[in-house]
Amino acid sequence: MTQLFKSCYYVSDDKVPGLKSYGELNPPSRLLLGPGPSNVDPRVLKAMVSPLVGHLDPYFFEIMNDTVELLRYAFKTNNKLTIPVSGTGSAGMEAALYNTVEPGDEVVVGMNGYFGERMNEIASRCGGKVIGIKEDWGKVVRKEAVEDALEKSKAKVVAIVHAETSTGALQPLHEISKLAHEYGALLLVDAVTSLTGCELDVDALQIDVCYSGSQKCLNCPPGLSPITFNEKAMNKVLARNTKVPSWYLDMSLIDKYWSEGRAYHHTAPISMIYALREALRIVYEEGLEKRWARHKKNSQAFIEGIEAMGLKMHAEKEHRLPSLNSVAIPTGVTDTNVRSTLLNDFNIEVGGGLGALRGKIWRVGLMGINSNEKTVIIALEALERALRKEGYKVTAGEGVRAAADFFSK
Amino acid sequence: MTQLFKSCYYVSDDKVPGLKSYGELNPPSRLLLGPGPSNVDPRVLKAMVSPLVGHLDPYFFEIMNDTVELLRYAFKTNNKLTIPVSGTGSAGMEAALYNTVEPGDEVVVGMNGYFGERMNEIASRCGGKVIGIKEDWGKVVRKEAVEDALEKSKAKVVAIVHAETSTGALQPLHEISKLAHEYGALLLVDAVTSLTGCELDVDALQIDVCYSGSQKCLNCPPGLSPITFNEKAMNKVLARNTKVPSWYLDMSLIDKYWSEGRAYHHTAPISMIYALREALRIVYEEGLEKRWARHKKNSQAFIEGIEAMGLKMHAEKEHRLPSLNSVAIPTGVTDTNVRSTLLNDFNIEVGGGLGALRGKIWRVGLMGINSNEKTVIIALEALERALRKEGYKVTAGEGVRAAADFFSK
Repeated sequence: MTQLFKSCYYVSDDKVPGLKSYGELNPPSRLLLGPGPSNVDPRVLKAMVSPLVGHLDPYFFEIMNDTVELLRYAFKTNNKLTIPVSGTGSAGMEAALYNTVEPGDEVVVGMNGYFGERMNEIASRCGGKVIGIKEDWGKVVRKEAVEDALEKSKAKVVAIVHAETSTGALQPLHEISKLAHEYGALLLVDAVTSLTGCELDVDALQIDVCYSGSQKCLNCPPGLSPITFNEKAMNKVLARNTKVPSWYLDMSLIDKYWSEGRAYHHTAPISMIYALREALRIVYEEGLEKRWARHKKNSQAFIEGIEAMGLKMHAEKEHRLPSLNSVAIPTGVTDTNVRSTLLNDFNIEVGGGLGALRGKIWRVGLMGINSNEKTVIIALEALERALRKEGYKVTAGEGVRAAADFFSK
Repeated sequence: MTQLFKSCYYVSDDKVPGLKSYGELNPPSRLLLGPGPSNVDPRVLKAMVSPLVGHLDPYFFEIMNDTVELLRYAFKTNNKLTIPVSGTGSAGMEAALYNTVEPGDEVVVGMNGYFGERMNEIASRCGGKVIGIKEDWGKVVRKEAVEDALEKSKAKVVAIVHAETSTGALQPLHEISKLAHEYGALLLVDAVTSLTGCELDVDALQIDVCYSGSQKCLNCPPGLSPITFNEKAMNKVLARNTKVPSWYLDMSLIDKYWSEGRAYHHTAPISMIYALREALRIVYEEGLEKRWARHKKNSQAFIEGIEAMGLKMHAEKEHRLPSLNSVAIPTGVTDTNVRSTLLNDFNIEVGGGLGALRGKIWRVGLMGINSNEKTVIIALEALERALRKEGYKVTAGEGVRAAADFFSK
């Protein structure tokens, strides 16, 4: 045992740099069409390198205020507590669950993909008793199953993934929201891959807690998780019997820094907030509805191309996420060969399947600035070539033509 | 109650942007001499805007490997698990405590400042029973008090702050480390403000877990917390009876992403890791010992200047942190007036006191690139002028002259 860990958690002296030289950063120029991160908007990069100010600087407070207002716009909410959590999307997931669930609480969790399973794991770690609704990965959670779970339990929280990044499924929320509230439960929604990439109206849908990630349809680097809590959810946080298990993610404390009083909690990740503000400014300039429509149109064109090549989409037609397109890998084609060709020959990253879907699907993200006509055409062309290299039979140009036809309609 | 929260957690419609326009970012050029963030090195900014690659891209794995090696250099350790946590320094504190403390475990915590108190809060939140060693804010924790606490308890963790950013005290660790290990306890050390800014040798001191922050002596933006666990600490993590309460900060999972297998955990904050690698490359080029000596020299010059102006340092002479210089505010001078003058007339940020030290000290950070002769002179000159504006009597140029004399020795 000790020997095992010796080799495992100890590095021999020569691994510590002696005279080794570390070169300048020089990353390849990838087209990032995986499940995230997506490419960063050049305007965002520029904003990110603006001179740093302190996290209690009056100028930074203005930037915080702008960021909050713009996040409210993106989420379509009037919730006061609408801020970026200082961590990635998974930190947002923890913040949502850790603040609203106390040890022993029952929680209904939609488990129709990798991130639904993660919600289960996180809700369990903070002492929640999860009532899981299992569904095939690629399908959506049915409202009947939610009603059943609520009826059989005393759950006061329903947690569900709006955009299941692992399957490409887009979850309808309207009926589930109605049900959750009929049973007096809060609705927690994971919108990591949907925020600004498809229709999402937090207030109209009466979502109580909603979180996302900076590195998807916002075209910001990964590292922040926008989150919003409505009044009802915050009342629940403030009325807890036990402290939130994470001090770092305790919303009652974080709220005090983002409110008028500006009480110091932790040092805000200033450069990343500069970046997020700029990304949101871009969303605001385009307008949400236009942005949603753009994502939908480009996804549809991509799907036309995929189907014209004889491939099949993984998610059901009526529940497809425009920002993340899951393509079933045809029999006889090796997942990793195709992805390696795309990466090495074309500098294009697409995602493989996670968990149960490993080797079975590709995940093609068309997010934010990457949701455009040129990218759809390039992605289809590169995929066709990579497939033909693997012996897959497809008429040259079939996919691109179908997409071009769609665009010219 | 509802009304209160109505006004508190709801924003009226007109706060959602209608036709409001959000201007381009244009932060003032501050000299950041507070407790952190410090100014970012221009090379770090440049690295940070390098093209994004995916978090599972072969190129990014190389960058991760470099970052780990360079962090081992900075911490002076051979520990395998030496990585940046995807959150600020406080997330590092949670990671250190949450992984090593289980519910009901006794933990000895040095409480001689704001961050020692925070360790107490966080250790308690994860179910630890804290045996707190209280000391005046500005003093260090005495080894006798640690021995006493260990003797009276079954504590298997001793958590202590190396560089107490709230007081400017530098904690000696050698004797405490010996004691902790004699009693079979792990030693956890907060090195947020000391890493690369003063002598710290994790392996020689037999520190079991040590964490820091990116935004202090490394001159990186805030958002990452470098951390290292030795074999003994990791064995404890792997032998836990209960799961780590935070999935996001579970080191056994994070280790799998940073190890050969590269198992996906959460999306790494790629641009920030680019930035950290560059910051560490700069440290590596200068050399740790030279860097420590530079911080010490500039701090001494600053103190000469402070004392020549008739001011007093807050921390005891033999335990002063070179990277964070705490100055006692003289009677008759208003804290906030001086700091406003410095910020508004000189674009210089210095920190105020936290908690019990509010209004009693200023905290002047001389961290990384900000630890240099020019900055010391400017800081003293600006402080003298701000003090005179407040009616404090000091001979013109006294502080600057003393520092210049010191430098010319």
